[in-house]
Amino acid sequence: MNGADLLCETLLANGIDTCFANPGTSEMHFVAALDRQPRMRCVLGLFEGVVTGAADGYARMAEKPAATLLHLGPGLANGLANMHNARRARSPMVNVVGDHATCHLPLDAPLTSDIDSLARPMSHWVGRAEAADAVGSRTAEAIAAARAGAGGIATLILHADAAWTRTSAPVPVAVVPAAPAAPDPARIRAAAEALRNGKRTTILVTGRALRAPQAEMLDRIAQKTGARLMAQQANARMQRGAGRVALDRVPYVIDQALATFAETEQLVLIGANAPVGFFAYPGKPGSMLPEGCRVIAMAGADDDLPAAIAALAGETGMASAPRLAERGAPDMPGGALTPDAIAVALAHLMPENAIVCDESVTSGRDFFRSTHGAAPHDFLQLTGGSIGEGIPMATGAAVACPDRKVIGLQADGSGMYTVQGLWTQARERLDVVTIVFANRLYKILHGELQNVGAGTPGENARRMLDLDDPALDWVRIAGGMGVEAARADTAEAFFDLLRSAMSRKGPFLIEAVV
Amino acid sequence: MNGADLLCETLLANGIDTCFANPGTSEMHFVAALDRQPRMRCVLGLFEGVVTGAADGYARMAEKPAATLLHLGPGLANGLANMHNARRARSPMVNVVGDHATCHLPLDAPLTSDIDSLARPMSHWVGRAEAADAVGSRTAEAIAAARAGAGGIATLILHADAAWTRTSAPVPVAVVPAAPAAPDPARIRAAAEALRNGKRTTILVTGRALRAPQAEMLDRIAQKTGARLMAQQANARMQRGAGRVALDRVPYVIDQALATFAETEQLVLIGANAPVGFFAYPGKPGSMLPEGCRVIAMAGADDDLPAAIAALAGETGMASAPRLAERGAPDMPGGALTPDAIAVALAHLMPENAIVCDESVTSGRDFFRSTHGAAPHDFLQLTGGSIGEGIPMATGAAVACPDRKVIGLQADGSGMYTVQGLWTQARERLDVVTIVFANRLYKILHGELQNVGAGTPGENARRMLDLDDPALDWVRIAGGMGVEAARADTAEAFFDLLRSAMSRKGPFLIEAVV
Repeated sequence: MNGADLLCETLLANGIDTCFANPGTSEMHFVAALDRQPRMRCVLGLFEGVVTGAADGYARMAEKPAATLLHLGPGLANGLANMHNARRARSPMVNVVGDHATCHLPLDAPLTSDIDSLARPMSHWVGRAEAADAVGSRTAEAIAAARAGAGGIATLILHADAAWTRTSAPVPVAVVPAAPAAPDPARIRAAAEALRNGKRTTILVTGRALRAPQAEMLDRIAQKTGARLMAQQANARMQRGAGRVALDRVPYVIDQALATFAETEQLVLIGANAPVGFFAYPGKPGSMLPEGCRVIAMAGADDDLPAAIAALAGETGMASAPRLAERGAPDMPGGALTPDAIAVALAHLMPENAIVCDESVTSGRDFFRSTHGAAPHDFLQLTGGSIGEGIPMATGAAVACPDRKVIGLQADGSGMYTVQGLWTQARERLDVVTIVFANRLYKILHGELQNVGAGTPGENARRMLDLDDPALDWVRIAGGMGVEAARADTAEAFFDLLRSAMSRKGPFLIEAVV
Repeated sequence: MNGADLLCETLLANGIDTCFANPGTSEMHFVAALDRQPRMRCVLGLFEGVVTGAADGYARMAEKPAATLLHLGPGLANGLANMHNARRARSPMVNVVGDHATCHLPLDAPLTSDIDSLARPMSHWVGRAEAADAVGSRTAEAIAAARAGAGGIATLILHADAAWTRTSAPVPVAVVPAAPAAPDPARIRAAAEALRNGKRTTILVTGRALRAPQAEMLDRIAQKTGARLMAQQANARMQRGAGRVALDRVPYVIDQALATFAETEQLVLIGANAPVGFFAYPGKPGSMLPEGCRVIAMAGADDDLPAAIAALAGETGMASAPRLAERGAPDMPGGALTPDAIAVALAHLMPENAIVCDESVTSGRDFFRSTHGAAPHDFLQLTGGSIGEGIPMATGAAVACPDRKVIGLQADGSGMYTVQGLWTQARERLDVVTIVFANRLYKILHGELQNVGAGTPGENARRMLDLDDPALDWVRIAGGMGVEAARADTAEAFFDLLRSAMSRKGPFLIEAVV
């Protein structure tokens, strides 16, 4: 056994059996080790952003970390943007980043770089395995870090000589991460008292509070106390649809977010942070809360949220039953295809237990309105604002849940960031339907340009914000990567395509010209 | 005028008139400023790796920096891999990375990250413009850093409030970077003495030493002294072809590199570093030099290499004329398409003054052998080993040199990393012919897996190293991004396609099935 085998065995002994990978020469001993170990499923991404985004989607659905395999500093760098999103989602992830042999590092070979400096901003834990004998314990530390609290990003830098050197060090079999913190009774009581004091109160939640049983309990508390219940703007995973609590989210657009909280006197936080603007705008506040709003941080992201919610219910009491959305969908509109028509079509056609991965940016902003009564589904969002996660996230979710239909809501501009993920969907025969909202511009930025008072965009602005010259042909791009695809530009055509896509298995892409 | 206008004016006043961009909300004021300033050419990349790779290719040919515009930490992260290559190429580059308004930063909004930590490993200079009044001077510092020595990567972090705040600070008009160091007479003399002492000596060069006049002078020195002249393995830019000195490079494959230097007793370095293995391999040395080989570091990368070479010639004397390659090409082979047939076809068909951007990895290793007598051209390589630079580099080179044919030699695996660059070629109507060596695997890694003694790859290794299931259809992928394309799988068909591609203007892609 060499260090690479020990790494592989340690991952498997701790339940990590999926590795999203884009290896290089310095990781070749780990590739050889994986090759000797068929229990590990290896999934290739043709770009590292696919690898890390898929690991994020996988972790959100599998509720355990995948490993990633990345090639030195530049390979890690390519995966950082989706590690950023995963970090904000609190997805557990164990990154294995190869580095030169320790003796080779001082020679400053072309691919040498400061991997620690690159890894740190997007990681909760960074460590190095410099010797084969240490690989097991370092890997166990990384896994513990990934599993700590709500979940963390652990980045293990594996030197080539640590991988190739023989070792007889034992495989660490039991890595016990710290259990989530028990609810703090004083904070639970403070929240309960606030909820009883008659002031206008919003309960703002995310994380495990958005699973169906917790949302039901929270809705019953809200009914009992008169509070308003909301989810934060972007959430790693929400369970929603018919038979579940119809939760709204804080809007992205700053003026709408400010209006949402204008009357709020008290805010109870469960897993969430106090809401702030996604960006700063001249003359507008950074906090979305009105002056004097009292904030009660009842439970943090790393706390045991189900226990905290149960404890809160014990203090406040609950209404007898939650208000659950009824199955139903608005009438399907006809004519030109719009984002709303797409949402309505999905409300009609989504199968039970679908997983919706949302990177629709502007086009999906009204998706909830039409789909509260859709078949029950999981809804996964871009949590860190770093676009290029949609296709990879759907890929990873489909690897985690092979028996569930995965639906990607994909803006065209962000879809191009990690378009290579379509190939992995084809290679792994994943059951993913990607809906590309082809508006042929960075629509969000057109809005933001107006917000900064720049007026009608001129030549230079249009050349940076428009994607229409040439228009992307998503049907050909997807086909070129082995994913069958078709285009729709009317509501009727979209409805028919979606129905057919929902009735088959395997990857499919719909270019929705909106 | 606001801070963003000041930035734009400072760039223009210092000769930077091209901006490769992928902006976001936090950069919207800079976009608005660029929109008010038509002298700045803005080129959109649909992914930041395209942006930075294009800036690298541009700088190598324009011999001045372009600006890049990147969106916060994740946008920078996406561009780091090609910044790494540019850093190794010593390409000058001025990156403008937006950050939140200073007042917004402590709120930890979703896109917040430690930009400095991300930027530092791939930058020679990192700075922040935190106030509008400081934007001009900080930008001037960045430009100076980019122009210092052989060239550097400068990363300027621009806070949104520094961009949007009004300022009357002056535009710094003259940024005088430090001139390259004059040649050190003692080191020149030491090199000259070594070249005269009768020992087997190699002169290893890169950088400006690879321009035609310097290579000619070096060849005349080599003739006079009996030394061998070589270029390092990867070089930012070489001038080669008919009428120029036929230089060979240090091989990539470690055993070949070791054999190259086995008899070398002395090594004179001009711009280059002593050769080391690209990677470490068990039981093989890191240095490519035999024990006892004397290294004379005559001139470093930041020195004035033309002056140093002229000074050396003054010490050693020179042969009367350089040995120049004669125009000619091997006979074109027929039958199945091979990398060699592609090189021979190029030797026949490349027009005068073409720019060849090489990311062919394994497939292009023998390119030089057949093309020493091709029409004179510039040859640009992947300098940092971080794949995914080929398509962007060709894009940037074509922006810099609109009247020259750009030819991309592109491996398929690495081409997929930044395939989005094809769209920019279509949008900007760039005269780039991309030749994809479609071998449908990470061939280099198959070789490396064998090198580590893993034998025949099994299921997991093949799933990480092969690209054949499904095969990528480059004709459809390119077509989907607006680039006309065709496929060839025989030498005859390739020759015909290449001839037709050379006779037209505008982007074209040939999928060469090898």
